[in-house]
Amino acid sequence: MDAEIAEQPTALDRTLTSLLPQIPEIAALAGETRQVLFVARGSSDNAAVYGSYLIQAHAGRLATLASPSIATAYGAKVDLSGVLAVGLSQSGQTEEIVDTMRWATSCGARTLAVTNGPGSALTQVADVSLVTQAGTEKAVPATKTYTTQLAALAVLALGLGADLRSEELRAVPEAVSAQVENPDPRLDEITESLVGKPGVVVSGRGMAFSTALEAALKLKEACYLHAMGLSYADLLHGPIAVVDEQTPAILVAANDGPTLSGTAALARRVTDAGAAAYGIGGGSSLAAECNAAVSGPELPEWLAPLGLIVPAQILTERLARRLGYDPDAPRGLGKVTQTG
Amino acid sequence: MDAEIAEQPTALDRTLTSLLPQIPEIAALAGETRQVLFVARGSSDNAAVYGSYLIQAHAGRLATLASPSIATAYGAKVDLSGVLAVGLSQSGQTEEIVDTMRWATSCGARTLAVTNGPGSALTQVADVSLVTQAGTEKAVPATKTYTTQLAALAVLALGLGADLRSEELRAVPEAVSAQVENPDPRLDEITESLVGKPGVVVSGRGMAFSTALEAALKLKEACYLHAMGLSYADLLHGPIAVVDEQTPAILVAANDGPTLSGTAALARRVTDAGAAAYGIGGGSSLAAECNAAVSGPELPEWLAPLGLIVPAQILTERLARRLGYDPDAPRGLGKVTQTG
Repeated sequence: MDAEIAEQPTALDRTLTSLLPQIPEIAALAGETRQVLFVARGSSDNAAVYGSYLIQAHAGRLATLASPSIATAYGAKVDLSGVLAVGLSQSGQTEEIVDTMRWATSCGARTLAVTNGPGSALTQVADVSLVTQAGTEKAVPATKTYTTQLAALAVLALGLGADLRSEELRAVPEAVSAQVENPDPRLDEITESLVGKPGVVVSGRGMAFSTALEAALKLKEACYLHAMGLSYADLLHGPIAVVDEQTPAILVAANDGPTLSGTAALARRVTDAGAAAYGIGGGSSLAAECNAAVSGPELPEWLAPLGLIVPAQILTERLARRLGYDPDAPRGLGKVTQTG
Repeated sequence: MDAEIAEQPTALDRTLTSLLPQIPEIAALAGETRQVLFVARGSSDNAAVYGSYLIQAHAGRLATLASPSIATAYGAKVDLSGVLAVGLSQSGQTEEIVDTMRWATSCGARTLAVTNGPGSALTQVADVSLVTQAGTEKAVPATKTYTTQLAALAVLALGLGADLRSEELRAVPEAVSAQVENPDPRLDEITESLVGKPGVVVSGRGMAFSTALEAALKLKEACYLHAMGLSYADLLHGPIAVVDEQTPAILVAANDGPTLSGTAALARRVTDAGAAAYGIGGGSSLAAECNAAVSGPELPEWLAPLGLIVPAQILTERLARRLGYDPDAPRGLGKVTQTG
């Protein structure tokens, strides 16, 4: 996991070089559709959450998440005319996702695959495939296959006509490299503070919500921590009750953007409740409200999730080892999950 | 909370009597739209999950969940022509939901409100309103306002042309009454087994996924338990790692239907991992795989969530008291949540 975290800058660079030329192909497919429906599970589902915010906030299209069991368990016929179904699977072999994409086609959707598996089953059922260039990933918790998926989704947004600049995307590998090579020293303090805690809440809003979900998934997978990934608003609708001295919160935000002030206010609410708040990103305004905070990437808000997840990956890897677990091979999990 | 749990049969009966005559009005609105987009938070969001499965599995329309921050934080313009935006808010006063519905109208959507607040702000921004008849709810954790929302969504599905029979819906109050009046005695054993546990996983699939989410939210709100509501498939993609001797699973299923066998198989996987599995519903096939299981309602699968949540509500109320908490007034929460 450690080595694969470090490989992310080069994996991102290769992926962008490979995928940016596909923008015209995506634009052609986009012209035949009106909205996006993501089909994914696990880490890929968290990547889809990023894609849904990015496309809705910047490309003017509705972009929401499918419920695969509608296809695989209920076998329902749903009108998907005008829909671009985007299937995400790192292996490209998860049958549930492949079957749901086949179903989407039969319901009238056009289809696009995002996968790290060239020639995989997923690419064979899709009209267009964006194949990420992460290389082989051995550790069970996804790291470089996740961030390269995010890069593919940023390319997808550009292909759908987003009001964003591809040069900013080009700068991502360097920004991620800075984070990988010089991990924030405050990560040690945060790692240590999580030892012995029964659970943690991870929260973010807008683009950073995807990072909160993915960070919580990593901590569950590799550290067996009861980590709850929640949006800022969902947290206030009930689950804020669980935050206490034994349940710290990790709050994630880009260095600017419309959700930063709300995230800083949430940190204050957490510490007012007697719990510890740890920040990832969010610049000085989030750090000021937290017990400890690590720097986020120097990236614009729409690309921040590609870098914000890196400190969470490093935290997961270190905490797992500190707790005596092997982060590369968590109990109960295999690399390709089949959920029939 | 206890009294309001007991009021559900009459609240459901009043709600159905009031709403079933609105089916032609819903059908007229449906004729102008192609798909459904739910706008909700908290318990209402869990109700929306039920609505999305019900409408997709039985009414042939795409039905997914909106991200309110696209409207309220990003102020993005999204093409919502052909969309029926369905806003759910028990009070009808949650500004984020009202603002998002106003935004949906400005983006070209038609709108429908589901609320327990007659004349509330939400009803004023919607083309059609389904006003539930739960009466005043005093306890912070929603119970009767939640189940009556589910009833309203079942009426919505019928209005959208679902291949289902309204007579089955009419039988719901009686089935729920049986659960309220004679709580399964095994609930005591399950309550006691959760004392001192740091967390619990709550899982279900398809229609019952909404119940798992709502049961987990209740346990978080009123018992401060780290309860994770996860779909069967999402659980297998990572979080299954957290299930161990200290982390039991509560599994929810209808007495029949396409997701029952998978839920029973999940129970076996949980007990194989050395954890306890507790069942709600699922008949003898789920009970056979669980350490203890309580009976679900005598309802067809599409209506089972209206009764399956009742044992979870009773469990929450009893566990909160057993732990020395007041289930009616959890720390950190008010009755109307504003998340701006």
